[in-house]
Amino acid sequence: MRITKDKCVYSFSCDHEPACRVMAPAQITLETRDCYSDQLRGGTGNPEIQWDHVNPATGPVFVEGAEPGDTLKVTIDAIDVADFGVACNEDEIRLLSVEDGCADFLGRFKIPLNKMIGVIGVAPAPEEGAVNNATPGRHGANMDEKLIGEGAVLYLPVFTEGALFGVGDVHAIMGDGEVGGTGLEIPADVTVTLEVIKGWQLEWPLVETEEVFAMVVSKETLDEAVDEAVLQMHGFLKSRMAGSGLTDEEIYVLMSLVGQTGISQIVDPLKTARFVFPKKYIHA
Amino acid sequence: MRITKDKCVYSFSCDHEPACRVMAPAQITLETRDCYSDQLRGGTGNPEIQWDHVNPATGPVFVEGAEPGDTLKVTIDAIDVADFGVACNEDEIRLLSVEDGCADFLGRFKIPLNKMIGVIGVAPAPEEGAVNNATPGRHGANMDEKLIGEGAVLYLPVFTEGALFGVGDVHAIMGDGEVGGTGLEIPADVTVTLEVIKGWQLEWPLVETEEVFAMVVSKETLDEAVDEAVLQMHGFLKSRMAGSGLTDEEIYVLMSLVGQTGISQIVDPLKTARFVFPKKYIHA
Repeated sequence: MRITKDKCVYSFSCDHEPACRVMAPAQITLETRDCYSDQLRGGTGNPEIQWDHVNPATGPVFVEGAEPGDTLKVTIDAIDVADFGVACNEDEIRLLSVEDGCADFLGRFKIPLNKMIGVIGVAPAPEEGAVNNATPGRHGANMDEKLIGEGAVLYLPVFTEGALFGVGDVHAIMGDGEVGGTGLEIPADVTVTLEVIKGWQLEWPLVETEEVFAMVVSKETLDEAVDEAVLQMHGFLKSRMAGSGLTDEEIYVLMSLVGQTGISQIVDPLKTARFVFPKKYIHA
Repeated sequence: MRITKDKCVYSFSCDHEPACRVMAPAQITLETRDCYSDQLRGGTGNPEIQWDHVNPATGPVFVEGAEPGDTLKVTIDAIDVADFGVACNEDEIRLLSVEDGCADFLGRFKIPLNKMIGVIGVAPAPEEGAVNNATPGRHGANMDEKLIGEGAVLYLPVFTEGALFGVGDVHAIMGDGEVGGTGLEIPADVTVTLEVIKGWQLEWPLVETEEVFAMVVSKETLDEAVDEAVLQMHGFLKSRMAGSGLTDEEIYVLMSLVGQTGISQIVDPLKTARFVFPKKYIHA
């Protein structure tokens, strides 16, 4: 199934009409606009940009059978990006061409792509109302987390019937923090497989790659986000390592030795941090 | 030259008597105690530990010719660790044996070492008085930055005559953040080459490896530390890339795409963050 980019929303909300309905497990491809809704195409100076039309997420997808208390398991099968992207700082708008897995930086050098998804999430709990796509949270959205790339699996807590999944704001390149407020913003086709895990959920989004688990938490400050990510990972590891014979304190020691705190982004309305733990030590 | 571990201080201060004097460039080996001054040797329960004798730094080394306004260039030639280390959480004290580049975690699995230096610095400016080794700052000290390992070069601003360099708190293993407050704390022999760069200094410590530069900043909050590290790196890159033809805004865009914010530690009296930039884009 393919969902075209005209079917998009600027917030995550349980009140949005679904763009489509799927029966899980389902593989779907979502066409995404860049974070500026494809309005910027190079040059200097502010074009007549509609600022209420930024950070579009294609969707929302109603996943049959997904209910509050469940988890939506999203496998990122592919991110196929366009042959150009936009990078901005203040009123400098730069169009970068993309070829052979690299972007051309102003004719000076090539930068290898690290394709990842900026905005990916589900509808938040009804009491939160509509949350603008720019703001990350327990429901995902604008986490700007580099690990959410091809091959990764994202576990999102479901807060409303059908989950109402959406995705957008793909970056062909982005560094941890997105410190200048821009990645290489790029239109893309994102192919995902959606599955529902019944009756299990975590408090925050969790990313799984071949090597690691990463808890991804968004808060007012980085300090709060990091502390919460550490706490949540400790809880997750306690349940996963229940048969290991390690005490709670020994799990903390292990996290201190081989776990890595990291910064997803520092430029959105809330800041996002991750705590990464290598899978090889969980079942060792 | 070899400096034995009995010659140590618990603070960085321009008032300390030098343990030795060297003429730069000088290669010296400093024997270091672990952060508990080698007082913990396994078991459970609090031993009679002298808490005013933690985080010892071997030294200080008076470097002839180093003056305020200069930079002390410290090349980490080697970190030779003992065959056991200590990892603690609350009153759980675990002794881990080290062999063939790995530590044995409670008999369950082996963890590869990532040897790094926790405390490394110079005397702060006279008006700051004596700063306990536990507290990181512009003068270095307890930055707990993983990149400060074998082969790395650390540039420290000099604030007092002779610089008064010291080093301690080696970790055989530590994750970004040191979230449980412990690395694999280990006695070591640290061999460094000290050089003086006259008339040039940065505001904060800078680490250079084969691949990257990293600005290392310590502040009350992670948010402040990250912001300052980004700002300082931008200033450093502006000077290094003056001939590149890139505008200040384009350098910010490049930092946003290929620069990486990171977390050194979140457990000391001030928190430490880094901003990492790949060297290959500086002279491209």
